[in-house]
Order: sequence, then structure tokens, then C-alpha cells
Amino acid sequence: MGRLADLSQITFDTESGVPLYRQLADSIRALIEHGRLQGGQRLPATRELATQLGLNRATVSAAYNMLEESGVLQGHVGRGSFVAKGAAALAEAVNPGLDWEAILPALEFGSAPAANIEINLASSRPAAANFPLAAFRRLAKEVIDSPEAETILQLGSPHGYGPLRRYLMDQAAAEGVARPSDDLLMTNGCQQALDLIARLFFAGDAARPVALESPVYHGLLRVFARAGASMIPVPVDQDGMDAEALEAAIARGNPRLAVVTPSFQNPMGTTLSLERRKRIVELAQRSGTVLIENDIYSELRYRGPALPTLKELDKAGNVILLRSYSKVSFPGLRVGWVIGPRPLIARLAESKQICDLHSDQLSQAVLLRFAQSGELAKHLQQTRVAGLRRLEAALSACEKYLPKGSSFTRPDGGMCYWIELPAPLNAENVLPRAEKRGVSYLPGTLFSNRPAHRRGLRVSFGGLTPEQITRGIKLIAEAAMEELGMLNAHSRLEPVAAIV
Amino acid sequence: MGRLADLSQITFDTESGVPLYRQLADSIRALIEHGRLQGGQRLPATRELATQLGLNRATVSAAYNMLEESGVLQGHVGRGSFVAKGAAALAEAVNPGLDWEAILPALEFGSAPAANIEINLASSRPAAANFPLAAFRRLAKEVIDSPEAETILQLGSPHGYGPLRRYLMDQAAAEGVARPSDDLLMTNGCQQALDLIARLFFAGDAARPVALESPVYHGLLRVFARAGASMIPVPVDQDGMDAEALEAAIARGNPRLAVVTPSFQNPMGTTLSLERRKRIVELAQRSGTVLIENDIYSELRYRGPALPTLKELDKAGNVILLRSYSKVSFPGLRVGWVIGPRPLIARLAESKQICDLHSDQLSQAVLLRFAQSGELAKHLQQTRVAGLRRLEAALSACEKYLPKGSSFTRPDGGMCYWIELPAPLNAENVLPRAEKRGVSYLPGTLFSNRPAHRRGLRVSFGGLTPEQITRGIKLIAEAAMEELGMLNAHSRLEPVAAIV
Repeated sequence: MGRLADLSQITFDTESGVPLYRQLADSIRALIEHGRLQGGQRLPATRELATQLGLNRATVSAAYNMLEESGVLQGHVGRGSFVAKGAAALAEAVNPGLDWEAILPALEFGSAPAANIEINLASSRPAAANFPLAAFRRLAKEVIDSPEAETILQLGSPHGYGPLRRYLMDQAAAEGVARPSDDLLMTNGCQQALDLIARLFFAGDAARPVALESPVYHGLLRVFARAGASMIPVPVDQDGMDAEALEAAIARGNPRLAVVTPSFQNPMGTTLSLERRKRIVELAQRSGTVLIENDIYSELRYRGPALPTLKELDKAGNVILLRSYSKVSFPGLRVGWVIGPRPLIARLAESKQICDLHSDQLSQAVLLRFAQSGELAKHLQQTRVAGLRRLEAALSACEKYLPKGSSFTRPDGGMCYWIELPAPLNAENVLPRAEKRGVSYLPGTLFSNRPAHRRGLRVSFGGLTPEQITRGIKLIAEAAMEELGMLNAHSRLEPVAAIV
Repeated sequence: MGRLADLSQITFDTESGVPLYRQLADSIRALIEHGRLQGGQRLPATRELATQLGLNRATVSAAYNMLEESGVLQGHVGRGSFVAKGAAALAEAVNPGLDWEAILPALEFGSAPAANIEINLASSRPAAANFPLAAFRRLAKEVIDSPEAETILQLGSPHGYGPLRRYLMDQAAAEGVARPSDDLLMTNGCQQALDLIARLFFAGDAARPVALESPVYHGLLRVFARAGASMIPVPVDQDGMDAEALEAAIARGNPRLAVVTPSFQNPMGTTLSLERRKRIVELAQRSGTVLIENDIYSELRYRGPALPTLKELDKAGNVILLRSYSKVSFPGLRVGWVIGPRPLIARLAESKQICDLHSDQLSQAVLLRFAQSGELAKHLQQTRVAGLRRLEAALSACEKYLPKGSSFTRPDGGMCYWIELPAPLNAENVLPRAEKRGVSYLPGTLFSNRPAHRRGLRVSFGGLTPEQITRGIKLIAEAAMEELGMLNAHSRLEPVAAIV
């Protein structure tokens, strides 16, 4: 069946910062969409295509797998991969103008790691073994037996489940982060809060950009890319977002918004210093920039004193605070919230209503009970003790194993940190070697929308034991040193060239 | 304190189809945003402003209430309404280019009806008294005690909770509505499915329009308005969407999508005939228009034989099917789904991931148990028996009480139907008279994005007893006749004019 597809003309942009397997998958998808490959056509074997294109075979496999998962290709054991029937007709009906580059592959969420990955340092999720399952069961059953169950099952308010909203508002007011003129909107986790904000502030008007940390969580990057916002990257270091760089960015680009993760930033893990917090709040007031404070990790502080939120420091009403239960309790229950001035919250609620009417009420009621009962505080206490052990294991393993010339951040909490491999290493090229050893991570290029952070990688230590973390770092270090050896061997065979 | 605000210059567009209270609220909000009203300024008393502007006092109250709810105004008992401090500063920071007209007021969802409304025919929600609360409690506790609870609490897949997805796919395949090349995405109710589809098909390219029923559910209208799509209205009658009008619309406008609610359409309540179903599917195939089948009410058939879905009739892969548990079980649990060709579902899942990672898993697991246990079928059976009684009460009351020259649709299921008052009545003008009598409904102008359906109104009978429904219709009829008398009295005082 099916004529063999010719993919030998596919080219790659090695400067784009987009991983090669994604470039390959996108090229194949484009050929299908433009009718250059037909339903039923067979694709070259991975080994064959790898040779033709000068790629690693694992890169070709990753691209094929991604396309099979999305239904564009169909794999048949022993016979190879084929273009799915009907893939083209559908692709045609779908808006061809969509920016697929802005849409991320399902790398981090939900999809199981490759079969041979024993130590998954790529996925930023809390350890299931530490879940307070017994408390959850007891409290959830209390909610279900309570008279409020009937209310929970009825259509609710776009603003969120009333009792939880009031609880969170009271708590925020007591902490000094909410003012009388503020209101609160419940969202499906923090991701939806970001999406609502991006849509509100950039709808039909992308004239002013958004300032984002660099590197930054790719889910955040994608939200603003899709909203059509242009982005100004502001570097992050051991003390969080570089306030001077933000000042320069504001002077140069007049951003409408700046998104800041003051505590245990994803992917760097670092914390914005008190001096920088004050300066950034003051900068925002002076320039009229709205600050989006992404405060989803601050409860996960394992050492050192807590710092005030930007919202608390702000006296002008310039800060919109985002919080979530996902990182501190049960990520499968999608419950986050936004605190900001009432008119803004009213508009976000109107938008939320168009998106999905309101957030699920059962989970909101269960999480309220979890917080009110004291079980959340107890769980947080245990999480902090376990988190410190993980963090210490991660940092000592770096000291001990990483090749000379490496550097890494030293967080005081959270679930991840950042390693920078020595030049001329590239964390994307090291990844297949690490995966062969059974360990995975996310390469730094994923955390920026422009070519950057090639030597960087994010290590997520949230869901693993200290022993796994230590071993994982050791294996990454081995993979890096192997690649370094290869690079050196390779450079001996070729004329010396400048490293770009 | 605060100087009295001068609102006497506000003007109204009586041809716009936008309710007067909304026009008034929007004008006041605009004055605040542009700094023409300052924080702390007092607004005229409702009676005074009604006289100044020639409005009904209830209209002014409704506008003030809406602004108070969104925090723009603050009411003080005995002292009047004031512009909130800080309202302006925030309004300025928010993108002024946003199309507020495209954003609906919180009329239908969540907000409690005005205090004096005894019979709420405006809100389309199932009757809480009929909820199978005992079964819900038993099954939810089973889920919580089961080993799968641990999985539910972990971050999940953007596609949805695996066991529920498989169950729904198997069911759809058995019914003949899903083909082997199809896939399924769980969403936060049907509203999110519409939003994801609108964003996917119209992102950055609104060159081709969307064909929508007219009148149509305002939440659906708003989704496409916000996505920037231009809209072609296609009339709906007793046999559902007018297929000939759709053919003409396709010939004229070449729409990318057509959204069809074949069963118990909101607001008309009518069902697309089999002949029209076949013709519309055939039309779509011929023209390459993608059909979005909004199939959220078809399980609520109270009489007559079931008809095949468009998805079932379609042989070309042109139909995307939307379904939901919200209308047949617990609306507070936000669980809907989309069935369509795999590549489309893959793209919607990527988009869903940017929006909110994935839908809440606890509710998905509970609803799966509810369906698998047979309790959903049992509940549906009871709902249909109760629904028929309600429907019959609604229709007989219309026969009996509506003024001469009225007409109304005769649904076979669902939760609402449509009354057309005789000329020269306007359902918006009748509404305050109805509300004074303790009954509310949604005026027809809400169900279109252009001036239309002035004489129409939607009656939702889902949540009331047959006695309440009968009394509600009687009161609406009285309000209409009172308005008719006023109109006649009024017309006697003025020269006869053509009715526009």
C-alpha cells in the first residue's frame, strides 16, 4: 500500500531555538496540510530518515510519536508509519492562519514519560506519595453529606463558589494583601487566570507589549503569544527578576503589563529580593505598568524568612495577585483565584462567563473544607519538611557531579531549579543521552520565545525522593560529560569554528 | 460630600436592540472611564434621573444595581449612589479597545433574581427539587473511597479524565455517532467547547463568517463576537434552522462554520426536522462548511420519536459534536465534551492546555460513576416525565391567556420556548410590568446581535412547577395587555405613525 513519502527536502533552522523533533513534526504536518503527502502514504523508517536528514534517530522517533498522538500519522508495528486518512481534509477546514509555533507540545502535562524514563526531572508536580489522601477522603465526604451539596450542584456564579470566595478574601484581607476596594475571582487554576488577563488586556490591541521574565514557564509564554502580545524578556537571576532591566524595558517598550513570579520562579527557582520587590512596585506606580504577581509557590518556602508580596507593598492599586491551590494541595482539582481592584475583577468575571460560565463547584467546596479544617496547613508543614530534603539533595548532587564550568541556582523553596551547562554544551543535545540513561528534564530553550538559554535546563524535584534526585543529577552530569567528549572528539576532526 | 453628577445629557439608541438599562449603565461607566465622573461623586436619585431622561424608574434602578454589583458605584441606604473611589484609575489601566458591547451582563447565570421575582422564567436551569441528591452522595463517596481517587488528585491530561473519555467514546461509537477516526476532548461544559472552537477557527483570520441560528442563546453569540467572527443569522422556525436560508447564507457569505442546535434549540425550543437535518449535512459537505452540532438538550425529549444527530448522518467528517452533562444532571459540575476528527481534537486539546491545563477531574469521575451506575438513565426518565408536565402546562397557559395575535413555539422537549407578542408590543417594554407582578423572562433582543426579535421573549420552564408556569404565563399576558392598553391610550393622543 501507499507510495513512500519523500521527506528528504525538509530543512531545519538550528538558530530558531525550536527543538529539532518539533521542527520535523511541524514540517511533516505542513506537507500533509498542503496536500503534498496523501492519506495512506508510508513514511520512511526512522533510521532511514535520520540518515537522509543528518538527524539523531531518536529525534525522528519523537517527531513521529508526536504526530501519531495527534492522529496525523498512524503507526503499524512492523510496517512503519502512515499518513492517516482524512488528516488533510480536516487540516484544511481548520484555520490555516493559526500560529502553531505558539502552541506547545504536550511535553509536561499528563502525557506519561517515555517507557525507559525512570527518573522524571521534567515534570513539575508534587509527589503523589505525600498526598494527604485520608484527610481528603474524610473532608470530601463531609462536603458531600452537608446541606450545601445541593447548592454546589446548581449553576453557580462566574465569580466562584461564594463560601470559598469569602474565605479567601477574608484571609487575604487579614494578611494585608487585599484592600477594601479589591475583589476576587475564582479560576480553573492559575493558568486560566493568566489566559483571562491576556485576553482582556490584549484583545484587539497589541500596540503595547508585556514584560515577562526570561527564562519563564512555557505555559505563561504561550498564553501571551496566543493573545497576540509582543513580549519583552527581562532576565532573572539568583535574586529574581532584574529590576534594572525591567526599568530599561519600561523606558524602551512601555509595556502594558509585567508578569512577575516573586517566589521560587519557574524555571529558575529563585526569589525576588525585598529591595527589588520595592523597586519594581515603585517602577510600576511611576510608569503605570500593571503588575501581574504570579504567587503560586510562595507557600512552599523550605528555608529563610518569608517576604511580603508585591500586592502588599503596592499602595496604588497596580498589582493583580494570582494564587492557586494546585501547587500546595491537589493539582487535579483546578482551583485558582485572582485578587485585584473590583472593576477589573468584574470584567474578568464577565470574560470568564463567556469562557466556561464558572469553575467547578465541587472541588471549590472540598478545598474550602481542606483549608478551614487545618488539614491544608498540616499538609503544607509536612511538604516543607520533605521539600527541604529534596532541595538539599538536588543542590549537593550538583556540587558533586556537574562538569566543571556548570552553574546552578540555589532556591529556598518551590519545585524546580536551573542548571547552566558549560559551553559549548547545548542542553537539547544532551537530552537524548540523558534519556538513554533513564532520566529526563526540560531544556532551557523551552522557556523563551526566542533563541536563548541553550545551555540551561530545568530540573523539577517536586515529585521524587532525595535518592532519585541525586541519581538523576549524576546521570545528567554523565550525559553532559559524554556529549562534551563527543564534541571535543568531533572538533578535533574539523577546522576550528567560532561557537555561535 | 461629592458634587452631584450631571447625567442629563445621556442619550439612547432605541433602534440598537440593547436594553435601555444596559445602555444607561454603559454610558455611566464610559463617563467614569473618561474621567467625566469622579470617585465620590453622588448620582441623581433614580426617580429624578428617570424623569430627566424620560425612562422608567425601574430601568434606572437596574442600571445602578448592575454598576454596584461590578463595583463601579457604591450604594448607601438613605444617601444614594456614589462613584466608587479608584474606579477610574483601574478603568484606565484596562485596555480601552475592548468591545464591551460583546460582553453580556450577568443576567442569566448565578445572580439571584430581583427580590420581588416569585416566578423566574428567565433562568434556564433544571429544578433543584428533582436532583437525585441521594444517588449523587452515594456515588461521589464511592469515587472518593476508590483507589482512583489518587489519580484524580494528580495533574491530568488536557484531553480529560481517561476512564470518562473512554466511556463516552465507546458510547458514541455504539450509537453510531463516533467513527474510528474521531477523538474526544473533555471541556468545562459546552460553553468552553464553543469558546475553544471559536478561538481555533477565527484566530487572526475573521475573513470568513460563522452562520448562527437567529434567535440563538446569547452565550453562544457572545463567544463568536469576542472571537472577532462576523456572523450571518439564519432564521429558526417550528422545524428548527431554515435550511433554505442556510443555503442562501452559504452561497452569499461562504461561512467557515455553521452552529446548529438540532434538538430543543435555545431559545426557540424547536427541533430540526429529519428532512432539514439531511439537507443541512448535505449542504455542508458540498460547500466545505464545518457544522458545529450543539447537542446538549437531545436527551430531554418528552414526546415524539428521537431523530439522528447530524454527526450520525454525516459521512464526510464535516460535523463536530458538542455534548454536556450540565443540562441532564448537575449544572454546577462543569463537564462537557467534543467529538470530532482526531487532528481537530488534538488542536483543541493544545488550546485547552493553554486555557486551563485540563478540566477538573473529581467531577468527571463522579459523573462517570453516575452514568455507569444507571442512575443517570433513571434520573433522565424521571426528568422526562416531569418535563412533559411542565411543557404541557406552559403551552396550555399560552393558549388560554396570551393576548390575541400572539404566537408561540411548540417544543417536544428541552427547557424553554418562545412567545411572540402581537405588534406593536415590545417584550423589553413589557418586562418591567411583568417584573412588577413578580415574574421575569428574557426579552428576545438578547438573542441576536442586531436589532431583531423585539416582540419575542424566551420562557424557561425547566425549574418550576406546572402551577408556577401557568401563573407566570398568565402574569406575562396581563403585563402585555396592560402595555397594549397604554400603547393604545398613548396612540390616541398622538398622530398615527408607521410602526417600525
